[in-house]
Amino acid sequence: MHEPDARLSRDCWADLKNPFRQVPGSICTPRGFKCAAVFCDIKKLDTGKGSEKGQKRDLALIVSDVPAAVAGVFTTNQVCAAPVKISRQRASKEFARAIVVNSGNANACTGRQGMTDARRMTQLTASELDKLDRFKRSSLAARISTEDVLVCSTGRIGVSMPMKNIERGIRACAPRIARSTSSARQVAEAIMTTDTRRKEIAVEFKIGRSTIRIGGICKGAGMIEPGMATMLGFITTDAAIEPSVLKRALKIAVGKSFNRITVDGDMSTNDSVIMVANGLAGNAKSEIRRSPFQVALNFVCRELAKMIVRDGEGTSRFVALHLRGARNDRDAEVAARAIANSSLVRTSWCGGDPNWGRILCALGYSKADVDETLVDVGYAQPNNRKILFAFRRGRPTNVALKTLAKVTSAPEFDLHVDLHRGRGEFVLYAADLTENYVAFNKGNVNDPETLGG
Amino acid sequence: MHEPDARLSRDCWADLKNPFRQVPGSICTPRGFKCAAVFCDIKKLDTGKGSEKGQKRDLALIVSDVPAAVAGVFTTNQVCAAPVKISRQRASKEFARAIVVNSGNANACTGRQGMTDARRMTQLTASELDKLDRFKRSSLAARISTEDVLVCSTGRIGVSMPMKNIERGIRACAPRIARSTSSARQVAEAIMTTDTRRKEIAVEFKIGRSTIRIGGICKGAGMIEPGMATMLGFITTDAAIEPSVLKRALKIAVGKSFNRITVDGDMSTNDSVIMVANGLAGNAKSEIRRSPFQVALNFVCRELAKMIVRDGEGTSRFVALHLRGARNDRDAEVAARAIANSSLVRTSWCGGDPNWGRILCALGYSKADVDETLVDVGYAQPNNRKILFAFRRGRPTNVALKTLAKVTSAPEFDLHVDLHRGRGEFVLYAADLTENYVAFNKGNVNDPETLGG
Repeated sequence: MHEPDARLSRDCWADLKNPFRQVPGSICTPRGFKCAAVFCDIKKLDTGKGSEKGQKRDLALIVSDVPAAVAGVFTTNQVCAAPVKISRQRASKEFARAIVVNSGNANACTGRQGMTDARRMTQLTASELDKLDRFKRSSLAARISTEDVLVCSTGRIGVSMPMKNIERGIRACAPRIARSTSSARQVAEAIMTTDTRRKEIAVEFKIGRSTIRIGGICKGAGMIEPGMATMLGFITTDAAIEPSVLKRALKIAVGKSFNRITVDGDMSTNDSVIMVANGLAGNAKSEIRRSPFQVALNFVCRELAKMIVRDGEGTSRFVALHLRGARNDRDAEVAARAIANSSLVRTSWCGGDPNWGRILCALGYSKADVDETLVDVGYAQPNNRKILFAFRRGRPTNVALKTLAKVTSAPEFDLHVDLHRGRGEFVLYAADLTENYVAFNKGNVNDPETLGG
Repeated sequence: MHEPDARLSRDCWADLKNPFRQVPGSICTPRGFKCAAVFCDIKKLDTGKGSEKGQKRDLALIVSDVPAAVAGVFTTNQVCAAPVKISRQRASKEFARAIVVNSGNANACTGRQGMTDARRMTQLTASELDKLDRFKRSSLAARISTEDVLVCSTGRIGVSMPMKNIERGIRACAPRIARSTSSARQVAEAIMTTDTRRKEIAVEFKIGRSTIRIGGICKGAGMIEPGMATMLGFITTDAAIEPSVLKRALKIAVGKSFNRITVDGDMSTNDSVIMVANGLAGNAKSEIRRSPFQVALNFVCRELAKMIVRDGEGTSRFVALHLRGARNDRDAEVAARAIANSSLVRTSWCGGDPNWGRILCALGYSKADVDETLVDVGYAQPNNRKILFAFRRGRPTNVALKTLAKVTSAPEFDLHVDLHRGRGEFVLYAADLTENYVAFNKGNVNDPETLGG
């Protein structure tokens, strides 16, 4: 078994005691998962660009052959989309069978009609899947009911769902579901908005004689098309696992991954990570706790999360920010987020500028407990333990700006901040703020199709 | 008396009951204030651009002929510059005589040396002013001591002050102090960093037979040159006023003005607003409370604050955000700041895009109490009571995007958000986020002189 990607953050190295390995593929790599994606003109309706770009797919289904334990983590935004409300409730139950997802319309701020539309999507998905011979033939498969289907949407906020297109899409999609790498790839594409590349990963490991696989896909965290606002993640596994254990495992993994990234500091109305575990690997459920399941899942989530930052809109630099020495972990997170969400810090990263003055400024106005005379700020190449300090114990060092700039002008670097106030730590993956980000998001009053709202 | 600038926010119209009028000039318009500014190569040392731009002035003195009541409001950033520490202490006393200010170096994160340098600046200013014949002759003037001098710095963080230049500058500046519009203009220029224009204002009003004048200058709030981080404001008046009353009045005015603006959400290490009142207008101190003093001071501060937003770095649009119906005023402020500091909202403003979906999203993740089904979002021309609603009571209206975009594509517009949860209100003056902002701040690794730190 070879080692996973060497670009892990330091806290991940501990995982290597538990062997798992990365394998090709994504959500169809675990046994018993099928998927398909189609184009049904939602993206075209949204930006007029769907068809120009060669009819990008915009509706997808992910289905488990058998009822699967389900878990979900959703946005904490008080304004949340209709599909989030429905999926949050259904992910709180023990089992699910399918997920229907569309891009091009977020079904957010759409009032009661939005709830009706989201429910209709799940109802139609259940009835269309239920018609299929392959499910009828399967002795394992119970009937698929509306309550077994989760729904996710990403796209423009405040526009009613084009239900005719959606219904046409679901009807066309259901008969095409298959367990193949190419259909998984199509689904990873269908959930993209202005992501520039697919985000997919799969790993496997052993529990006794059973080989367990975990696969995942996700889409970008920046609010990517004008008015777009979503990070979506879908994770499948064939592990046999108690639903309550799965829920806890996903919560832990998301806390260490998707909740440790920031592209523009804007938390979306639609953020959802959904995981399903169908048990077809045949392991003993009691073995899960002593297995590499959690570390493998952490790895899957962390790598997907990093892909989101690297592909953040307009992003030109990826910064792993290691905040140490805070009074407690909460303070460490507050300080790290103040740095990584400061427009001025992010802009300096864009120019490859080791502007530690702005970092101190952001630390100072954060709510974390900071004593300027104790702070260290340093830079390092990714995962390199040799830190070049720019500021130590409240004083500029004599490391030349040019030397620091050699590190910070690379596409990826580590930023180390030590507050020397306690033992609190937090790692945050962050991106720079570029002219392209602004150009991307600003819309154009002369072209109403680019406007949000 | 003609009416003040018609571009007042609505809450300022109430002030018109109390008559004051805008007059030409700034800090030397009130009686008994003198000032001067010189170039002493601090800006050149900072960016190499000082001399290219025709030797911009970078050191200034503001002096009152007689001891003046003093008040100051300073940054709440935990990391604050040496001059802030010294001026905060001296502004807490009753009287002061002079302010020395430089641009090009913030004297922040400079350790003990920074404190020594800032103290030396005040000490030299006092001794140089004390040498001047005009002060010796004046029967009113007491000796100027070090403790009577306040100090402000704005510029690069983390670089020691070039004290030779500073000392040369103070020695050259002191003999030039004069009470003229042109010297006040030079001071307003000397405190600029990459502000594109001077920010100055003066008003006058009557208390009994005495004519009271208030004058002010300030410099920009964006962290303006690479590594720069300061908003500075200086206000003079010839009103006779108790120091404790002055302190309270300034605090109120700053709360309604400089604390209600945001350019990039980055609170600086050097923000300072200092006010001095020398009493030469000869009014009875007891009359102040019933006079237009507070409303005139509010007006001066609010207009200066708006100038800062309009001249924010890269700013192309000025938005007056009226947040109403929050559970309380604190919630209103929190909600308003979430909107105005959202990268995505600000970017949409840049494109003139009425992207209310992003506004709802920002409201949702703010800590304010928000119920999506109650929210109104609308746009209006500046100070126009006719609001075009995009979203009412949780639903998109049928006002066309094009119609909304006509309002939001103007250089200034009002944004009205009503949460319908209570009676809390807050007005915030905000700016858009543009490509120019990023270009301005990002530094260039190939040109180390543009780098911060």
